[in-house]
Parts: sequence; C-alpha cells; structure tokens
Amino acid sequence: MTIRIAIVGYGNLGRGVQTALAHQPDMALAGIFTRRDPATVRAAIPAAGPVLPLDAFEQQASEIDVAILCGGSRTDLPEQSPRFAALTTIVDSFDTHAKIPQHFAAVDAAARQAGTTALISTGWDPGLFSLMRALGEAVLPRGETYTFWGSGVSQGHSDAIRRIPGVAAAVQYTVPIDTAAEAVRSGSQPRFSTRDKHRRDCFVVLDTDSPAERDRVREAIVTMPDYFADYDTTVQFLSAAELATDHGGMPHGGFVMRSGETSPGARQLVELRLQLDSNPEFTASVLVACARAAFRLAQRGEHGAKTIYDVPLGLLSPLTPEELRASLL
Amino acid sequence: MTIRIAIVGYGNLGRGVQTALAHQPDMALAGIFTRRDPATVRAAIPAAGPVLPLDAFEQQASEIDVAILCGGSRTDLPEQSPRFAALTTIVDSFDTHAKIPQHFAAVDAAARQAGTTALISTGWDPGLFSLMRALGEAVLPRGETYTFWGSGVSQGHSDAIRRIPGVAAAVQYTVPIDTAAEAVRSGSQPRFSTRDKHRRDCFVVLDTDSPAERDRVREAIVTMPDYFADYDTTVQFLSAAELATDHGGMPHGGFVMRSGETSPGARQLVELRLQLDSNPEFTASVLVACARAAFRLAQRGEHGAKTIYDVPLGLLSPLTPEELRASLL
Repeated sequence: MTIRIAIVGYGNLGRGVQTALAHQPDMALAGIFTRRDPATVRAAIPAAGPVLPLDAFEQQASEIDVAILCGGSRTDLPEQSPRFAALTTIVDSFDTHAKIPQHFAAVDAAARQAGTTALISTGWDPGLFSLMRALGEAVLPRGETYTFWGSGVSQGHSDAIRRIPGVAAAVQYTVPIDTAAEAVRSGSQPRFSTRDKHRRDCFVVLDTDSPAERDRVREAIVTMPDYFADYDTTVQFLSAAELATDHGGMPHGGFVMRSGETSPGARQLVELRLQLDSNPEFTASVLVACARAAFRLAQRGEHGAKTIYDVPLGLLSPLTPEELRASLL
Repeated sequence: MTIRIAIVGYGNLGRGVQTALAHQPDMALAGIFTRRDPATVRAAIPAAGPVLPLDAFEQQASEIDVAILCGGSRTDLPEQSPRFAALTTIVDSFDTHAKIPQHFAAVDAAARQAGTTALISTGWDPGLFSLMRALGEAVLPRGETYTFWGSGVSQGHSDAIRRIPGVAAAVQYTVPIDTAAEAVRSGSQPRFSTRDKHRRDCFVVLDTDSPAERDRVREAIVTMPDYFADYDTTVQFLSAAELATDHGGMPHGGFVMRSGETSPGARQLVELRLQLDSNPEFTASVLVACARAAFRLAQRGEHGAKTIYDVPLGLLSPLTPEELRASLL
C-alpha cells in the first residue's frame, strides 16, 4: 500500500522532502501546501507537483495519510502542528529544545482528541542525536555525553550578523574543535568550556567596505553576547559574489559521544557522527522515514504526540520485521 | 519499583552483567544460575551474590522479572532461550546471524504460549550495529552500508588457530583497514573485497618452538579456508607469559557507516562507532539496558519474541518519557 504524503511549507526543507519521497518505494506525494500563491510556486518550480493553498488542507485531509510539516519552529509549528494534528497524522521538526514540553502537550491534546498520531521534534538534532544521547546514557550510566555540531551553517548566528547595521549578507559556520573531540575519543572524560568545543567562523559582506567599517563590524560580532562572546570567533570580509560562490551550500553535521567506564579502567566509547553535504535534504530524509513510522503507529492505534523515543526503529524501514531480522540484524 | 534480574550463565558476559547491574538505579540481582557447582563459584568469587544451580530456576521463576541469558550461541541459547522464555521475560545475545530466523521462531512460540517477552539477539552486533544498518538504509535509501569490526579479539578465529596441532595458545585480532574506512568517510561508495576491509593479526604460542615449526604453523594459519585465506594475515610467535601480559584483554569495537546521496552530488554520511576496552562488559551493559526495555514491554502486554527493531529506545532509559523529552531530546 502507498502512503500518501502532504508537504506543508515549501522552503528548503519542503523541497528536500519532495526529493526524498522519490527514493521511497511505498510513498507518494499527495500535495504541497503553501502560504504563497500556488501559481507563483508552480511557475518557479514546474516539477513541484500538485501545489495548493494552505487553507485547502482541510478539504483534502481525507486524501492524506501523513502531513510533513516543514515550517519554522519560531512561529509556524507552534500554530500548525496542533492544527494539522487535528486533521491527520503529522511529523514535524520542532527544534526549540526549551519549548519541547509545551509543544508536545499542545500537539498531544489535539492528536488525542482527533485520534491521530503526531511524531514531533524529529530530524537529526533533535532526532538521531537525541536517540544517541539517551542510548549512551542508558547503556553507560557512568560517563559523560558530548554533543559537537558542525562544520555547518548556523542559520540563527548568520541572522544575528545580518542584523548588524552595515552588514549586507553573512554566513556563519559552527566548527567543532578537533583537539577537544580527540580528547574525548582518547577515552578521557574532559570538562569543556563553551570556547573549548566550538569555534565560530563568519563570512561577511559589507554595505560599504572600508578598514574602519571592518573594524566596527568585527567588534560588533565578536562581542555579541550569547551568540559570539563566549567563543573564539573569526571574521572574514568578502564580496557578495564570493559569498554566493563559496558559501552557498548548506553543509552540516556533528557527533554525539558517550564516554563511560563499565569497571575501573574499562573505558567504552560510543560515537554517532554525521557528515552532511545538505542539512535540509538530510533532515528531510529523516522526516520522510519518520512519516512511515508515524503512519504505522497510527494504524496500530497508537495515537497522541510521540517523539523518536517512542518509535521502534524497525518502523522506519520499508522492510518487514521478517526481512529486517533475516538481512540486517 | 525494582526490576529483579537473574543472570543465567556466569562466564565473562555473566560477570559483565553483574558489574553493569550495580550502575543501574532500578535493578537488583535476584540470582546467578550456573551449570557449575555453585559452591565452587562462591569459593572462587566470594562477592558473586546468590549463586544457584541452573535447574533451580524453575522454582525461583516467580521471583524473577527478567532473566539475562549469558550462554553461547552454538549450544546454550538454542536450548535455553525457549526454555527460560516459557518461565519469565528474557534477554539474549544470540549472534549466529544466519540462524536468527529459526531462533526467533522457537523463542516466539515459547514466549507467546507463556505470555512472556523475549528480546533476542541484542548487544552491539547484532544489536546497536543492526539498528544503525536499518536506520541508515531507511533514511538514505540510495547508498551503501559498510560494517567494519575491530580492532578486537575474535574468539572464533582464536579458537581456529588453537585447533592446529602444535599450538598451545593463540589470540587473533580483527583489524579494520584504515584506508578503506577513510575512503568511505570521504563520501565515496567504494566496493571492497574481503581483503580490502580487514586484516587478521595472530599471536601464537607453540608447544615446541623451532623455525620449522613456526613455518608449518604460519602456513597452516594463512591458508586456512574461510577463516584466513581471504585476508592479509600476520602471524607472530611469542611465549605464554608474553601472551598473558600483552594480549589478556578483550578490547573490541568497530563502525557501521551508511554513505548515501539525497540528490546528485549531495553526499550524506552516517557513522556509528564503538571503541571498547572490554567487549563482554559493553555487551553486558547493552543487555542490562535491554532488560529494562523487555520488562516494560512485558508490562504493556507486548508478548512474544522481539528484536531491537521492535523496541522504542526510550524504554532502555531509566528516565521517564517526560524527563527524556525535557533533558535529552
């Protein structure tokens, strides 16, 4: 049977979902729902498939098995996840860690009332990295957990630079510090300050380039509280053309490590590492596999909000339990 | 509430389970069951805890929530897993990959009839590595999966050397070949022969050391079909004392990698890596966390045989779902 998928929101993540769906044998795109004028999306991306206005979703809900919500965590998902969970099974990538409990509660209430399943906060972090943190602590209760991100573009930090007056464009990379990672891999359990684990590399285009302007903007960046002041930060200035050519990709990745001891001197290390050429396409690929799991949970009658911790991972695979046991166990 | 755990079989793995239990807040050792004379175990290991003969298990079963079966896959588990699954919830580490389907069927029948839960074939491979293989393929359907083992002691290969006449003792290490691993990490999807991925390093003690005897035994090892002939194999001869001093540990590890493309040129790599000072203690630590999950599945009424693919990973953690969402997601 084919799982009918709707994409809600058609930015980088939504396009990544569309690409990922084409690689899955048991899924079909039922529709793309957007707040923009569907005609402009169809004109810009002729192969987009069926594009409909967001408010047409209600009418179409009976034709959709799972809606993959591709909006942002700040304003879109807090409103959309409960709204769509009241209509069908959903998957979202809500990633404001501190607000997950309240997001879970709001979505859970909507999904329970509607008898749907809502798999929230999935992707790679939260998502695969969350799994590894819990698994590492469960298996190695005596130890330390380390999460490193990068090298990759941080949208939030890039935005913070762009808000500085005089900045025309900017890209910020979060870079894990090799010596810190290697210290953990050696089996020790070091304590790190914020500065020890990550560096921040900034590439900035100025409205008007001059030595004084460079000094002013560099200073505004490296002293910015919360975003940069606690890190070693490098700032390079370049032209808009150079930024587009050399920094137009969306690579990311990182690693979660659990370093523990099972008996005195017996050091055990577990590491999950991601190296991603395209952050949105990989996140989308996780969401699509999670949509299969959410669909199966819904079929089993497991309704309400769920996280990756509630999902037997075999449900992500197109293989049957028998096939998984015979070929991959 | 405390989960009462029985250890069935008291070799390296059983002792590892006992050590791991001491680190878990919600578990207690209810008994160690052994085929040996319990008095000799108590005499050799005074801190072993309650040691009982294997055949006393039936009488004690009502006092045991989960039995962790620590026997071998060749003769112990095919008989013990169905037998004990008929009495209580069990976890085993059955690792003969080709025979998993028939083991599953036998255990499933016993567990369903008794209304127990039996989580089979867990540990790290099969177990955590199996999870990563399925997850990698579900998320990145277009790609290749690679499993590398080591550096670590292979019991089967060490035994094969010991069976050669004239060999007094031997330890064999399986060693992943760095250049092969790095080729995968670079984002390519190479094809490897058996020889390309692993090397085999053998440390051998002879009954009677002589140049002729060394040549004969070396030749017998490196030409041994299935075990060594398809690999680059090194053989070093040493004294029994040197073997004990330098090769008495049980390190192991390895890595599973999924290298895929989400769109042309967008290469994505997922890697799970283990670096273990003690293979039996780490395997035991996984079994203990899995015992918690099996106990919870049994409480939910999810009876029959299960594998790690059927387990929501949150069930491995001592934390509640609320705590997991708030602290680790």
